[in-house]
Amino acid sequence: MIKKIILDTDPGIDDVMAIMFAEAHPEVELRAITTIFGNVTIDTATHNALYLKEKYQLKADVVKGADKPLVRPPVGPSVVVHGESGFGDVEVPNEVEAVADPRSAHQYIIDAVKAEPNEITLVAIGPLTNLALALQAEPEIVNLVKEVVIMGGAFGVNDHRGNVTPYAEANIHDDPHAADIVFSASWPVVIIGLDVTEQSFFTGDYLEQLRDDAGELGQFIWDVSRFYLKFYRDKVGLDACHVHDPSAIAYVIKPDLFTLREGPVRVVTEGPAEGMTVQKFDGRKYLHDDWENHTPQRVGVAVKDAELLKLYRQCIVDYAHKVG
Amino acid sequence: MIKKIILDTDPGIDDVMAIMFAEAHPEVELRAITTIFGNVTIDTATHNALYLKEKYQLKADVVKGADKPLVRPPVGPSVVVHGESGFGDVEVPNEVEAVADPRSAHQYIIDAVKAEPNEITLVAIGPLTNLALALQAEPEIVNLVKEVVIMGGAFGVNDHRGNVTPYAEANIHDDPHAADIVFSASWPVVIIGLDVTEQSFFTGDYLEQLRDDAGELGQFIWDVSRFYLKFYRDKVGLDACHVHDPSAIAYVIKPDLFTLREGPVRVVTEGPAEGMTVQKFDGRKYLHDDWENHTPQRVGVAVKDAELLKLYRQCIVDYAHKVG
Repeated sequence: MIKKIILDTDPGIDDVMAIMFAEAHPEVELRAITTIFGNVTIDTATHNALYLKEKYQLKADVVKGADKPLVRPPVGPSVVVHGESGFGDVEVPNEVEAVADPRSAHQYIIDAVKAEPNEITLVAIGPLTNLALALQAEPEIVNLVKEVVIMGGAFGVNDHRGNVTPYAEANIHDDPHAADIVFSASWPVVIIGLDVTEQSFFTGDYLEQLRDDAGELGQFIWDVSRFYLKFYRDKVGLDACHVHDPSAIAYVIKPDLFTLREGPVRVVTEGPAEGMTVQKFDGRKYLHDDWENHTPQRVGVAVKDAELLKLYRQCIVDYAHKVG
Repeated sequence: MIKKIILDTDPGIDDVMAIMFAEAHPEVELRAITTIFGNVTIDTATHNALYLKEKYQLKADVVKGADKPLVRPPVGPSVVVHGESGFGDVEVPNEVEAVADPRSAHQYIIDAVKAEPNEITLVAIGPLTNLALALQAEPEIVNLVKEVVIMGGAFGVNDHRGNVTPYAEANIHDDPHAADIVFSASWPVVIIGLDVTEQSFFTGDYLEQLRDDAGELGQFIWDVSRFYLKFYRDKVGLDACHVHDPSAIAYVIKPDLFTLREGPVRVVTEGPAEGMTVQKFDGRKYLHDDWENHTPQRVGVAVKDAELLKLYRQCIVDYAHKVG
């Protein structure tokens, strides 16, 4: 069955890997790319999405989203991780011919899910501001979306706790208030956080093989990932990068790659642990419980990493052969 | 070597167990009991401490402390856990002859540590308001206190996360701002939280044996613990209670019962996870890090529970024989 998705993204290097994974997989229909600030500014994110649309003749609409978080002061782009262009050392042409849909991202999301009730999965791999704005403007969408799949957060499973702070993951840290709104809404959310994304690795060798076996796209993924792998080598001490954003697409394609844990999720929105994601999963009663009346959501706690890597490779190689 | 302690407490059933542990052990000199709101109101806490002073002829001064948290609205006493009197079903006489020291608890602490620099260990088994007030009034005390031993918090070790909320322990939840001040100060703090206190159990049988073998004090501990054990039986499903407050005294007496983990500790002061304690212990560098410049403190992650139980029993039984 074809899965129709709207992909909310801040491209970003692993965002490219995720966008092209969605585009390449025959069971996914990438309906739109809604952009968000995060790894890069909103203008860069939108420009990069339009560039990809043009370069790979994507049918997906590109729609510009929010330029800043709901409440907190902006953290600013992750230049050190994704480079000035957002695509590492790869320069993106200043001019692209593709144009964005005139709507705002959150309005586009509302219109799309109203037009096709319970058909569309929202996949968000950046800060959750667009989704929160859509919920605020039209709360009814909780009943119209098929599923919400998020790459973000860290739940302390196997000691995975944070990447931009000791206890926060970048997407949630960038807009904790939006994340708390999205996780608390009464729609079905699956959260693929660092607990699982840091269990899978695109190694230098893996990406090299992809470059050699997957034509122009394999080369492009290789090119954009040079800067990213250098960051991982210098800062994390790995000749590999974690499979962050593509893991959310992997969940859409093959949910049983992941083991999930159910329970309401809240977000710390202030103070030193700002952006920390906290799930209540013990079902116990407490005297004071700010989770109790919130929707149980599902959080990834384990992943079949070898299968995920195989799925990704197969998909990109097949696509390359198909488009020649 | 004799360990001179000031015990900051909100008695409270397990507080009684801790106070009498400190009083009974020959290597501990209980110099003062400073009181704090928490399990009970500040007036009840002070009255109960004075009652114990009179009943057991304690040499310790009793000093009244803060009646409310620094910033957050008061949570209110834990009547459901400790009963109206704070001593479960045991009624405390309205009139006691012992009188409190006229100073405030935080001023008493300041005076005491100035009078005997680096001689006194502060042991706090309630909300940390008095200690925070002392730090605010006289920051210099960080260099005058021998050690600060806290019963409070929960660090997620072995899935111990909270008791009054899914992610907060009562003492810290009662005044998270005070706790963040105390943990952040540049004095040596050891935190004995739920991660270890919930690993030790005073079972029904254990307390019965103590009643039979430890004279009047054994009987008194039995009497006050009836209500507490009923709470545990009804709400937690255990014929036992956790060894919360006495564990802090056990640490003072025999530190090597505990395995500690080092790293700065912060407290979530707002929102759903208010009162959550979060330690950074991985030594990694992060882009944003509100732990980085805070004092590394030590957090209990494991306890030799059988040895702790033996130590407690021996101490109370010996005391009973000594006082006849």
